[in-house]
Amino acid sequence: MKINVVKNVLEANDALAAENREKLDAAGVWCVNITSAPGSGKTSLLEKTIPALAAKGLASAVIVGDLQTTRDAERLGNLAAQVTQINTEGGCHLTASQVAAALAGLDLKGLEYLFIENVGNMVCPAGFDLGEHARVAMLSTPEGDDKAAKYNTLFLPADAIVLNKIELIEALGYDKSRLYDDLKKINTAAPVFELSCRTGEGLETWLAWLGAKRTR
Amino acid sequence: MKINVVKNVLEANDALAAENREKLDAAGVWCVNITSAPGSGKTSLLEKTIPALAAKGLASAVIVGDLQTTRDAERLGNLAAQVTQINTEGGCHLTASQVAAALAGLDLKGLEYLFIENVGNMVCPAGFDLGEHARVAMLSTPEGDDKAAKYNTLFLPADAIVLNKIELIEALGYDKSRLYDDLKKINTAAPVFELSCRTGEGLETWLAWLGAKRTR
Repeated sequence: MKINVVKNVLEANDALAAENREKLDAAGVWCVNITSAPGSGKTSLLEKTIPALAAKGLASAVIVGDLQTTRDAERLGNLAAQVTQINTEGGCHLTASQVAAALAGLDLKGLEYLFIENVGNMVCPAGFDLGEHARVAMLSTPEGDDKAAKYNTLFLPADAIVLNKIELIEALGYDKSRLYDDLKKINTAAPVFELSCRTGEGLETWLAWLGAKRTR
Repeated sequence: MKINVVKNVLEANDALAAENREKLDAAGVWCVNITSAPGSGKTSLLEKTIPALAAKGLASAVIVGDLQTTRDAERLGNLAAQVTQINTEGGCHLTASQVAAALAGLDLKGLEYLFIENVGNMVCPAGFDLGEHARVAMLSTPEGDDKAAKYNTLFLPADAIVLNKIELIEALGYDKSRLYDDLKKINTAAPVFELSCRTGEGLETWLAWLGAKRTR
């Protein structure tokens, strides 16, 4: 009974996600769904990424999911062509239906990228397709080098993995080999981008991936 | 319909939580439910707390919730009198029913404290009473100084708040006043313990609280 309810919810979500993707495809917009724990640096990554893309003439919109507050949307408001905030009011992940409602309010014309910043949560967002073309699973060095194995459902479906705050590796004694050993068992297809949103180190490789993956 | 399902699940959980609490009360065991994002330092806090309590002749058991792996339980295995691992297999929070099953396998005699390390998640554990006597909401400086407001449902029901990794405050430019300004609107009753599991700074105040709160 319980399993059926969950199955129906996921099927309805997946159908809406497919509609979102079709709409984005028709408009030539490439969509990235960014997932991570709270504080890994999703907003900081977008603060670096969006102006860099804009400098190449590529316009981005952002959909930001949060339980409360509009702080992330405020941080991104001046950088992206359009920013839409979804307040989940306690909800632990974004759904395709929330993204569909946000899409209805966006002007997709002239956009190249749509970034969806999911609710900070390493568990629940993993199961919900939003209609994105690529899923990014992000983590940061202060969280510890054991997180890929412990929250493996986030890393299994990822098309790219971002390790942020690499400027702290030495100070924290972060052991990268533990992360890579774990990823060997979870996801060997996704590239891993080691970067620092603070110092800018490693961002070029991430930006090159965004450029190469986007097809129109 | 959906709301009713959720309501029933929560009512069933609360009834089981009350049973857990009665069982713990009868055995004279004081129970703390520790919640935080992944990597805030829940296991590290217990690695410091349990030996300090043991040095005072106070025995602790731990129930550790994780999606996968037994890594936290392994870290705590030599420190606590008893450690029970709950693998939620993808579940985003512990439930009173899982804790009841774990309690059935613990020998409560001679125990003073039971610590429950919840799944690393700032959203879903907030709604689920496990039968604890005190709820601790933990956060750490690398997550950013905006997290109490953004994940306020975790901090609303907290009996104590722990800010970990204070040794990084300066390096990260963490603004404590933002945290305290947010907490003024969310929870003014819970004490805030600023500490560093790494350097040991601030742990004495936290231990004093554990000692004072425990009633038998």
